[in-house]
Amino acid sequence: MNTFGKNFRVSVFGESHGTGIGAVIDGVPAGINIAAEDFMEDLSRRKSGAKGTTPRREDDVPEILSGIMAGYTTGAPLAVLFRNGNVRPSDYSLFKEMPRPGHADFVAGMKWHDFNDPRGGGHFSGRLTLALVAAGTVAKKILNSAYSADVLSGYGLAQLPEEGSRLFSVKASLVEVGGVPLSEVERPGVTDPTVLWSGILDKAMAEGDSVGGIVECTVGNVPVGLGEPFFDSVESLISHIVFSIPGVRGIEFGAGFKAAGMKGSEHNDPIVSPSGMTSGNGAGGVNGGISNGNPIVFRVAFKPTSSIRMTQYTWNFTSGKIEPLDIQGRHDVCFALRTPVIVESAAAIVLTDLLLSLR
Amino acid sequence: MNTFGKNFRVSVFGESHGTGIGAVIDGVPAGINIAAEDFMEDLSRRKSGAKGTTPRREDDVPEILSGIMAGYTTGAPLAVLFRNGNVRPSDYSLFKEMPRPGHADFVAGMKWHDFNDPRGGGHFSGRLTLALVAAGTVAKKILNSAYSADVLSGYGLAQLPEEGSRLFSVKASLVEVGGVPLSEVERPGVTDPTVLWSGILDKAMAEGDSVGGIVECTVGNVPVGLGEPFFDSVESLISHIVFSIPGVRGIEFGAGFKAAGMKGSEHNDPIVSPSGMTSGNGAGGVNGGISNGNPIVFRVAFKPTSSIRMTQYTWNFTSGKIEPLDIQGRHDVCFALRTPVIVESAAAIVLTDLLLSLR
Amino acid sequence: MNTFGKNFRVSVFGESHGTGIGAVIDGVPAGINIAAEDFMEDLSRRKSGAKGTTPRREDDVPEILSGIMAGYTTGAPLAVLFRNGNVRPSDYSLFKEMPRPGHADFVAGMKWHDFNDPRGGGHFSGRLTLALVAAGTVAKKILNSAYSADVLSGYGLAQLPEEGSRLFSVKASLVEVGGVPLSEVERPGVTDPTVLWSGILDKAMAEGDSVGGIVECTVGNVPVGLGEPFFDSVESLISHIVFSIPGVRGIEFGAGFKAAGMKGSEHNDPIVSPSGMTSGNGAGGVNGGISNGNPIVFRVAFKPTSSIRMTQYTWNFTSGKIEPLDIQGRHDVCFALRTPVIVESAAAIVLTDLLLSLR
Amino acid sequence: MNTFGKNFRVSVFGESHGTGIGAVIDGVPAGINIAAEDFMEDLSRRKSGAKGTTPRREDDVPEILSGIMAGYTTGAPLAVLFRNGNVRPSDYSLFKEMPRPGHADFVAGMKWHDFNDPRGGGHFSGRLTLALVAAGTVAKKILNSAYSADVLSGYGLAQLPEEGSRLFSVKASLVEVGGVPLSEVERPGVTDPTVLWSGILDKAMAEGDSVGGIVECTVGNVPVGLGEPFFDSVESLISHIVFSIPGVRGIEFGAGFKAAGMKGSEHNDPIVSPSGMTSGNGAGGVNGGISNGNPIVFRVAFKPTSSIRMTQYTWNFTSGKIEPLDIQGRHDVCFALRTPVIVESAAAIVLTDLLLSLR
Repeated sequence: MNTFGKNFRVSVFGESHGTGIGAVIDGVPAGINIAAEDFMEDLSRRKSGAKGTTPRREDDVPEILSGIMAGYTTGAPLAVLFRNGNVRPSDYSLFKEMPRPGHADFVAGMKWHDFNDPRGGGHFSGRLTLALVAAGTVAKKILNSAYSADVLSGYGLAQLPEEGSRLFSVKASLVEVGGVPLSEVERPGVTDPTVLWSGILDKAMAEGDSVGGIVECTVGNVPVGLGEPFFDSVESLISHIVFSIPGVRGIEFGAGFKAAGMKGSEHNDPIVSPSGMTSGNGAGGVNGGISNGNPIVFRVAFKPTSSIRMTQYTWNFTSGKIEPLDIQGRHDVCFALRTPVIVESAAAIVLTDLLLSLR
Repeated sequence: MNTFGKNFRVSVFGESHGTGIGAVIDGVPAGINIAAEDFMEDLSRRKSGAKGTTPRREDDVPEILSGIMAGYTTGAPLAVLFRNGNVRPSDYSLFKEMPRPGHADFVAGMKWHDFNDPRGGGHFSGRLTLALVAAGTVAKKILNSAYSADVLSGYGLAQLPEEGSRLFSVKASLVEVGGVPLSEVERPGVTDPTVLWSGILDKAMAEGDSVGGIVECTVGNVPVGLGEPFFDSVESLISHIVFSIPGVRGIEFGAGFKAAGMKGSEHNDPIVSPSGMTSGNGAGGVNGGISNGNPIVFRVAFKPTSSIRMTQYTWNFTSGKIEPLDIQGRHDVCFALRTPVIVESAAAIVLTDLLLSLR
Repeated sequence: MNTFGKNFRVSVFGESHGTGIGAVIDGVPAGINIAAEDFMEDLSRRKSGAKGTTPRREDDVPEILSGIMAGYTTGAPLAVLFRNGNVRPSDYSLFKEMPRPGHADFVAGMKWHDFNDPRGGGHFSGRLTLALVAAGTVAKKILNSAYSADVLSGYGLAQLPEEGSRLFSVKASLVEVGGVPLSEVERPGVTDPTVLWSGILDKAMAEGDSVGGIVECTVGNVPVGLGEPFFDSVESLISHIVFSIPGVRGIEFGAGFKAAGMKGSEHNDPIVSPSGMTSGNGAGGVNGGISNGNPIVFRVAFKPTSSIRMTQYTWNFTSGKIEPLDIQGRHDVCFALRTPVIVESAAAIVLTDLLLSLR
Repeated sequence: MNTFGKNFRVSVFGESHGTGIGAVIDGVPAGINIAAEDFMEDLSRRKSGAKGTTPRREDDVPEILSGIMAGYTTGAPLAVLFRNGNVRPSDYSLFKEMPRPGHADFVAGMKWHDFNDPRGGGHFSGRLTLALVAAGTVAKKILNSAYSADVLSGYGLAQLPEEGSRLFSVKASLVEVGGVPLSEVERPGVTDPTVLWSGILDKAMAEGDSVGGIVECTVGNVPVGLGEPFFDSVESLISHIVFSIPGVRGIEFGAGFKAAGMKGSEHNDPIVSPSGMTSGNGAGGVNGGISNGNPIVFRVAFKPTSSIRMTQYTWNFTSGKIEPLDIQGRHDVCFALRTPVIVESAAAIVLTDLLLSLR
């Protein structure tokens, strides 16, 4: 359903071209210092407008409906609402007749008997990730609070010191765009992916096509002991929420798919310090589903944007034939550009839930 | 925790060298025809004994404790117990002192303050997957029952006919071992992976090392409409349970990580028939998290077995130094050989839960 | 936490004097005909303003944020928001110093370390029941839809015909106020409880005191077979949600507490018709936790309103002494007057969840 | 379904005349000292054999299948199995034809299409409460452990000292049998209810009839702050699990149903000490759903045993007429006699879950 988490629970609602998008975040400890402005930094990273992203611009200003008073969480559920502003009334009946390739048009029509909201993808829109990012901001605040430090020390769980005094540093960025790895494009002092991969993006834009990308996320300074056997391993929960992000095709931890081609003697990570630090990190910071104190590292593969300007062919349910389809509207050439902060949010939500599930 | 699923719920318990391993399966519809013998086919596929697998042999005969009467499920929870027979009493205190590389020894000791059962991996043992396979057998029975057909027709959900009249054919097999893809070793009439990759396995065995592998799972004849937005997408649930299987490093659906390097015009799957069949299957049978009627296809990367005969080095918490460690006991050279039926079970459990969650 | 239900899930958020109160309702089948006006009838029954209820008046107009398009549910979560209008800024710091008897002031302060919102009870306010009533309206719509009829016939579950063709008639009303049973005050043609018990209410109001009441709820035309053993019996789920309503002290089904004093030969309900109708209804329509086709009948005891005009005494945490406390503000003399529709909503939510959990 | 709890989860399985009854208890902290013998004290209180209880005797010796090693919990799920020994093969087909009044025969047949196990009530048998009592023993151990004390001090939650140094004293006993309150039968030095109410029990036995009773449970030395708004109030969770016990007709907290007839000035509990002690306990130790530090007090009404020796009448589905029914077998004259320890277990399970849900 539309809720994720056990002790830190995130519920999302909304549609792309309806009233708005929102999140209800339950299980937030009382006393976390958080303000409306705190949401803006992450939200701006998700925004469109840069090269390769859709020109539809939304203010994406969150309204806090509940759960915060005088700058501190109250212990009651925190509800956040993003009203949709830049809605263009359109006729989406075409996509009931001719489902767009790569979209949920056909399955949503079948599953909800054409009662689903088709406007801009409705409840399937990537715009739902706004709710994830808002919840991620709350999660990051909790992870780096005095509350979090108290819980961990209460459970006697050590944290490795490599990230300084800061707890849980969650960082994600693109390591491949359009099949071109970062190593081929990186230049000193340049961090903006639209600059690094501008050639790839320009070409796709010119062709009316789209490209995908791979995001790598690293969570540093993770304490030993997060994760629950058998089913709620760190990897299980992270992959669960990551595959909720529209357009994900794969996820791998540590050595990932390469591990399948390695020998045990190559892949095993020997422990080399009393705090549990390992010489390599093929396990991606997790053994037996439980964090081992080394950075949690995972990569997420995003497909190319489904909506492209080029003519495509699909089944016309009225005519009973395959016919050409031209998709109008404003679309990302590479929506993967906007996903690193979403992946970070997903990771932060999982780690917060696991932190609050320690017993 | 140790329970997975919403309407079809699987709870697992047990330790490798304790009394036994078990599963409690709740939400089973009444009237499913199932007998103790039905469990044996899948269980035998998970068994050890062949080349590349541990010589520890267990009878693995399930005892049905509840939920079945006169060959039919009753609607009450189905509990299954596998008693451990071939238990070798040993001293595992060494692994508290010197945690094995790649194992959960260190994290389990930290998390449960050394109260965890270390014998044979305890609750972290791959032997827990016995419970998954038993639950998978029940799931497959439900998926292919008249009950399942009735539910689907009640919801007006179509099934593509490509697998004949059989509903939900779930099939997994190895497509890579030790870095060598199936394409390089396949021979007419040979299906046994220990024969196909015998060279790789022999070499690893001779060196006292281990190798990994990749399993591909295909679920045919899936109706359109399984999966729930936002968080309970088909991929979310499958990846969640798959990462519970010990030793998984990655999962990808359809075109997977390759999708990140494709263009939209290459990766999009145009619909080419009124039943929703697509020309390609880059999406792996899922759009917007919901099954689209084409086969669900995913691949799972398994690491090489952590326990190897070669001497390894790890931290000795008593001496405070890195020291050599020799692991005794019976181990798989390539535990991935035993995993296809586990992956199938995982997929069947998810699809059953989604089937029973249709509304 | 703040979510109830398995397949029909209601999440509530909000505070009495914050931005507003809301509900997110997940699991709503697509195609249920529902409009903003549909909420108004039940909401108006919960409203204050009549004799014995607080003079604080709120418009209580719901804003539908998501999940409905063109008058029909879409299958996506339905979010409803009630903005607080009639908020009076006040100083609630007194109640941190001197917790009001019968209120959550003391426990909330202890539990959330004084970060909780104390204004008007904050998240503990009876105003949260607005969210329940909104969800109840959706539940009643589902229970009486063609969808519901289809589900039941799909499962072969019979419904007793005594309520005509209408499915699931849920009706609650007061049967006792201020210790005076309905039998002592009922008059032909009078249904308004503020008229029936006007003497009791006038007296309490004059004295600056408050009174409680008992609500009886009857659900007619319930199909046989709703409820799940072992833990999700009809009574378990109804009592769970009913005790979430502020001010409930007890609940009983059928013969209730009187059953404890009856003999088996008196209390047993013999079946007297092929549809399962029983001669009596001591079981309140439930056997073994499962609906038996007879009306589900239960009674709920509400305490007198805690906030009274009379001077009370409580601990002053600053002075360290018991001291007199005068509570200002607008309060119900008998908040039980407003609860029948809330109890109905609670019952409807449970029955909908059980309906959607049939398998 | 058959699982209760969020962080301390109890799953039950089994049938009265099948292989056995069991519980899987998940979320148990590691390091709780517990042995098979610890279960016996509570189990013996649930046993039959005394006057007024069925002469069917079972050894009820628990087999610990997992989760305990060397006398301490490991952090993995604890599974307990009670094999059924004293099973009498019988023909239960009569009860499909003629459902017993007050039993689940009719509803179970309808719900599971006659696939349910009818032997001795099958999964509806009161024998399932064995699993609750076993889980209750584990819960009591946790509540009174150093672990529990650490959690509470970590959250800064105070406990009132009135019960000495012992945490969470959970005690339940009968306060009414067959309509006769304890006050009318109590004698110095006599605690055995079968002696106190022997007249009532003898009479019912002689008549082939049965009687009910009321159990009162008091939990002393409860810290302030357990319970979660909105839906997981202390009363919500306790009533949820209590109504899972077969034969419960009502539950009330503190002043209970009498509260509905009281004035606010009578019912409110003023705080009279800095630790939160109140002058009365009309709230039963709970405000706003959260424990207030005073004893939690509730009463549970049990119906008379449904199976009686007297001839009863019920519908014969074969003949299509109301016909006489004689029930053979061994039955309790007053099963309420065996329920106090079950009620205690239910309360202990809830409090443990709430303790482990503190954040």
